[in-house]
Formats: sequence, structure tokens, C-alpha cells
Amino acid sequence: MFNIGIDLGGTDIKTAIVDMDGNIVAKAQRPTLAQRPYNEVVKDMADSALEALAKTSYTLDDIKNIGIGIPGIADEKTGNVIFCTNLGWYDTPLSKEIQKYINKPVFINNDATVAGYAEYIAVVSKGTHSSVFITLGTGIGSGIIINGKPWSGFHGVGAELGHAPLNVINGVMCTCGNEGCLERYCSATALIRLAKETLQKDNNSIIFEKCKGNLEKINARMVVDAAKENDEIAVKIFDEYVFYLSKAILMVINIIDPEVIVLGGGVSKAGSFLVDAVNKKIPGFLLYKNSKYPEILIAKLGADAGVIGAAMLGKE
Amino acid sequence: MFNIGIDLGGTDIKTAIVDMDGNIVAKAQRPTLAQRPYNEVVKDMADSALEALAKTSYTLDDIKNIGIGIPGIADEKTGNVIFCTNLGWYDTPLSKEIQKYINKPVFINNDATVAGYAEYIAVVSKGTHSSVFITLGTGIGSGIIINGKPWSGFHGVGAELGHAPLNVINGVMCTCGNEGCLERYCSATALIRLAKETLQKDNNSIIFEKCKGNLEKINARMVVDAAKENDEIAVKIFDEYVFYLSKAILMVINIIDPEVIVLGGGVSKAGSFLVDAVNKKIPGFLLYKNSKYPEILIAKLGADAGVIGAAMLGKE
Repeated sequence: MFNIGIDLGGTDIKTAIVDMDGNIVAKAQRPTLAQRPYNEVVKDMADSALEALAKTSYTLDDIKNIGIGIPGIADEKTGNVIFCTNLGWYDTPLSKEIQKYINKPVFINNDATVAGYAEYIAVVSKGTHSSVFITLGTGIGSGIIINGKPWSGFHGVGAELGHAPLNVINGVMCTCGNEGCLERYCSATALIRLAKETLQKDNNSIIFEKCKGNLEKINARMVVDAAKENDEIAVKIFDEYVFYLSKAILMVINIIDPEVIVLGGGVSKAGSFLVDAVNKKIPGFLLYKNSKYPEILIAKLGADAGVIGAAMLGKE
Repeated sequence: MFNIGIDLGGTDIKTAIVDMDGNIVAKAQRPTLAQRPYNEVVKDMADSALEALAKTSYTLDDIKNIGIGIPGIADEKTGNVIFCTNLGWYDTPLSKEIQKYINKPVFINNDATVAGYAEYIAVVSKGTHSSVFITLGTGIGSGIIINGKPWSGFHGVGAELGHAPLNVINGVMCTCGNEGCLERYCSATALIRLAKETLQKDNNSIIFEKCKGNLEKINARMVVDAAKENDEIAVKIFDEYVFYLSKAILMVINIIDPEVIVLGGGVSKAGSFLVDAVNKKIPGFLLYKNSKYPEILIAKLGADAGVIGAAMLGKE
């Protein structure tokens, strides 16, 4: 038997046929065209999944479940989308709608939770007691896996670490309306903001060369590469970013204390350079300086995490 | 059958014989005298439990387990205390030591976790999917109950919400060595600090009458009572405190999203006056303003929570 995994993004719908161990058998993809009525988007989700299935020698009789990762908040119990800001979906009966085309049990969850679950099922956090997955991208996504299951809380609004408060007094304004949300300090966007603010005051840095003098072109990779090259200003910017990220990780430790913390998304491409920097800061922040704390790992699945984790959602 | 519950505090050792439903059958208490060698403290813990047992018609044959709540971090697996700052205990083999006197299975956990577990087992959060207990006292203690079990994390260092970072830039210095810990903004101590700072600038408040002009005598109750009486300065202080507490609760919602959040400790004596004030702030902070969020409740067990929760630790 196999499952259908669907990763619904603001830009693309990605689908895959996935075996029970989390291996992809076939994939398909098409644009989301998010401005359309939701039922048209859902029809394309189903059609894309059937397109992936047609690439295999299997039929719908070989499919057990459909799993969907959404860029928003899902009600696992009803199978409805509570909301997806990017898509403008509110209280949308996603599961029922897709069952019009493919009548199988549907499981839905948040996309970062699903990606974290994929790492748990298939790769880096496989078999752990508990793990927290954090994507360091345009924003911050997070997924919590407890006792082998994705944890989204009782009302489905948990595992939104990006909007946990990290700096409540005079914090940076967030798109969610609050000041000082964690993602304003720990996302790739935040690293770029720190770099711009610093270079506006002093551009004697190889970051300035890398962006060809246009601060609007700075990306996370330029800052990380310059820091690796020991550029003094880049090292300072990266160190400030790592301070905030380490405080965010401290929050996860002092609340959940999972066995492992997995970093994904753009900034995580810095790899061991990032992990080593975080591991230098964390022990000094711990309540008991000598205590053990979660191992910090880099995610491995990349772009396929969404479809793999979604496909595994119905796993018992 | 019954269990022995022991609440080890910096000041007192409290013990009780507790039935399988969490009802206390008999109690005993003696001073901790924390400066003594740990084995003398442990002998008094055992003696106090036997003293409580002697007040009943039961014998050790009727006792199944011993449960102990400690003011620090416990290793549930080995039964050792990892550390208790107040007692100066580090890597102390508590379970083995007490078994020299009472040879029964021993379960240990953090005192706030144990108190939260007692509310789950016996009272306010009984039968819930998940709950987070927060004590608003001299410091902040917390207990997380997930799937009916206390959650202290993989390394035993979780559920320490008081030292989660809430304000990482120019935050108030904490005893743990970090700046901006949550307990520096949400404890009774924090409410008193806010009141002192405000009254030093402007003492035209009935708080000033209540403390008889001695700002060092201000306590949380004076501030709450004055706010209830609509004293302008007290209302402003209380509102600032509630802002921080609501942000702390937002952190719990955006990470764990439990079914209920239970407030205990000194400030929680403000009861519905506190809960109503928090519930006015939270919806405006939510990622999706109309989403459901955890019910906020006031703890009911008070001083007995420690022994009841400890006694229940071995429950299957």
C-alpha cells in the first residue's frame, strides 16, 4: 500500500505517491494560482496526485490515505482548514472537497509540522523520543513531534514557534500585529535585516562586495559566506543572529526539552557552521550549566519533506 | 492500596498518605533544615512519611509507591536529583537513599510539575487532553501534562517556563544569569517590582497607604486589592503585569496549545479578576484573532498539591 502526500504552498502544489516507509515512488507538481476559488485549487491538488499515480504501475486500490500539509492552521478533527493567510482560506472544508475526486481518508496538518514529521519518520530525527523542527526561512515554521505523533495542540494552534514572543518590550513589529515575535529575530529575513542595518552604518565588509553595493540584494547566504571568510562585520552580524536563535532554542529547551532540535530552511544551509555557533552559546544560557540538552541537527529532506510528511500523517 | 507523597521544600518536608484517587488520608510535616547533609534530610523524609502512615490504620503492606516532588530538576529514569539549588544537591541518589528506609518503588519529579499533575489528577484540569500549570509566586514554576502524564522533557530540563526568554534585549537580569527570563516579568516578585518602580516616581496611590509608606512592604495582594478598588496607579501597574503574563500565556499557546492553562501561586489568588484581565488581552495577540485558545483556570489545591501530585506520580 501507498499514501498520497500533498504539499500545498502559496506558489506550487506538490504531490507524491509515497510508500509506507516514507520513500517517494512518483511526484507531480503544478502552480497553485492562489487567487482562484478554493475548489479549483483543490481540484488541481487531486488531479496532480492522480498524475503522480499514473506515473506508477499502481491504481487507487493501492492507495490507503491522503495527507495534506497546508501553509496555515488545520483542524485535524474535522479535516477543515481553520485559516491560510496566503491563500485567503478560512474555515474551508478541504478534506470533504478533495474526497469528491479521491475518496480516501484525509489527514491534514500545518506544513512545518508535516516537514518535521517527515524528518522524524524518515531521516534525521528518526525514532527519537521527541523532536522540534524549526525552519529558518522567510518566516519561522515549526513542527513538534511527541511520542511519535505530530503535536499541534488541542485547538490546532500550537507549534507556531515563529509567533512566540521573544522580545516583548520595544520589539520589532511583526506581520501578525504583535511586537517582538521570535521570527522577527530568527528567520532568514531577520538575518538580512540585521545585515542591512549594520551595513547602512558601516559598509566596510565583503557583504557589500557580494551584493554589489545594493543592500536590497543582500541574502542570508552572503552573510553566512562572509562570516565564514572571517569578515569582521559579517562575523558580528552572524553572532547577533546566533544569539537570538540560541535564545529561541533555549525557549524550546526550557519548555519542551525534546531529544533533538532539527533546523531547516534557508539559514540551515550554513550547516555545521551554524550548529557549532549555537552550541557555543547554549550551555551558558542553561538553568543548570552542566545539564544535557537537545542535540541540534540540520534537516536533510529539503523540498521533499512536505510531501513525505503529509503522506505519513495517517500512520498509526 | 495507597501511595506516599512527599513534597520536599527548601523550608519544610511535607508528607501524606494518599489513596489511588488523589485523596489525602493522613499528613505529617517537619522542617527541612536544608543545610544538613542530604542523607539526614532524606531520613527525615522517610520518618515523616512513616509518621503519617502511623496516623492511619494501614501498614507498609498497603503502600504501593513513593512519589517525591523536588524544588529542582530530577532524572526520572535513575531516580537521582540532577540539582536543587536551594538545597545545594547535585547528582544526589535520592531514590536509592530513601529506599534504605522504605523499600518501595520511587518516582521523582519537579515540584511545579507535580503540583500541575495533582490538579490534573484530582481537580481543575481533571481528564483534560493536555494542561499547563503555571505558579505565579516568588518565582515561576510550571508543569506540563500531556496525554495524562507529566512532561519534563527528554533530559528532564523541560517545563521550566520561568526561565524561557521573554525579553531578550535589555531584559531584567535574572538569578539564573540570563537577561529577560519570563519569571522576571510574571512572578509575584515582578508585580512587586513594577509597583515599587512606579510608586518611587508617583506615590499618589492607595498602595502607598496599604504599605504605610514603606515601599519595601509592598506585596502582590496590596497591588491587586488597590486595582480592584480602581486606584488609577494600581490599575496601570496591574495592567502592565497582565500584559506580560498574557504574553507568557501566548508563548504557551503558540508552542503547546494545551486544552487548559491553570494558574497557581500567590498572584492567582486574584482569581477571576486576573483571569478576566488576561482573557481581555489574549485574543488580540493570537495569530488568528478568532481562533479558540486554552481555557484559563485558577488552581484549587493550594498547599496540598505537592503531596497529592507526588503520590500520583507512579500512576499508570
